[in-house]
Amino acid sequence: MAAKENLRPGGRSARVQASVHKAVRELLAETNRFEVTIPLIAARAGVTPSTIYRRWGDLQELLADVAVERLRPDMQPVDAGSGKADLEAWAEQYAEEMSSGPGREMIRDVLAAQAGANACKCCEYTRQQIVVIAERAKARGEAFPDVDRAMDELVAPIMYRILFGDVPDVARVRALVARAMQSAN
Amino acid sequence: MAAKENLRPGGRSARVQASVHKAVRELLAETNRFEVTIPLIAARAGVTPSTIYRRWGDLQELLADVAVERLRPDMQPVDAGSGKADLEAWAEQYAEEMSSGPGREMIRDVLAAQAGANACKCCEYTRQQIVVIAERAKARGEAFPDVDRAMDELVAPIMYRILFGDVPDVARVRALVARAMQSAN
Repeated sequence: MAAKENLRPGGRSARVQASVHKAVRELLAETNRFEVTIPLIAARAGVTPSTIYRRWGDLQELLADVAVERLRPDMQPVDAGSGKADLEAWAEQYAEEMSSGPGREMIRDVLAAQAGANACKCCEYTRQQIVVIAERAKARGEAFPDVDRAMDELVAPIMYRILFGDVPDVARVRALVARAMQSAN
Repeated sequence: MAAKENLRPGGRSARVQASVHKAVRELLAETNRFEVTIPLIAARAGVTPSTIYRRWGDLQELLADVAVERLRPDMQPVDAGSGKADLEAWAEQYAEEMSSGPGREMIRDVLAAQAGANACKCCEYTRQQIVVIAERAKARGEAFPDVDRAMDELVAPIMYRILFGDVPDVARVRALVARAMQSAN
């Protein structure tokens, strides 16, 4: 799986990946996910099923691979003027997106895969967003918590509640941000 | 699904459930999980596939139902003499069990189900263990953190790390316990 990161843009391998990902996204949008199969994806993408099996192993890995692409943040965290305000804005959006129907579906796909590579990547995307907020805070001369600590005290409780049946509301998210900010240094 | 909680012990419904659960556990132990199907489970359990579909809806719900039964704690948290020592002993065991191969498999099964009922149940089992530790601490006259806070500061980071590709080692778990204990009141 790691090899995919080094695909030559526009190369055959990259084109196959783009075409298969597109087919998965379209099929997920059009049909019940339990009806999405590798032969169906292959036909839509114009490749053979064995190309998909060779590259992704099984359907769950492919779904995880597509889900993690969609979980990749497409913007920098909003600059709301201070580290705390940035963290609050980011965390509220994160909690809202991840607890939405499509958000839960994507997390489920990422976690259902046997190989943990995509789950790590997903965690790394989140961590990078906090790093950006932390660096901006430092540049302003503000105190800000360690990134690992913010992951433990803010991201982990939000994700735990989403996965195990709760929805973290705005008040809850703000309380977690306030608590995480107490360790700012 | 909720109705299952009120099954009359020894009644027909309870017997069907016990027999189907046993068949799933045996098949998971014997074969590759991707080869476990509802017809196979039905044949082993001596029921019709439609009995299983009617009761559990789909294979993923049934696997989640079996997994959550196995995640139900079968003992009270060890009494190690103090709230902090109890929490440490419990958290170390929890981190070890949940990050093991079978532990990860069970969590994956619980989270892969569309209905969130089993995930809630799983969270509730964990919470109950912390409640027991908290009550024991209070009975000894010790300060102890709020249970929700311990869930946020200890359980959530352990589970987040396990799910998103890390293994929380003993030192890490102890640091989380120490941090959670800071809010004891």
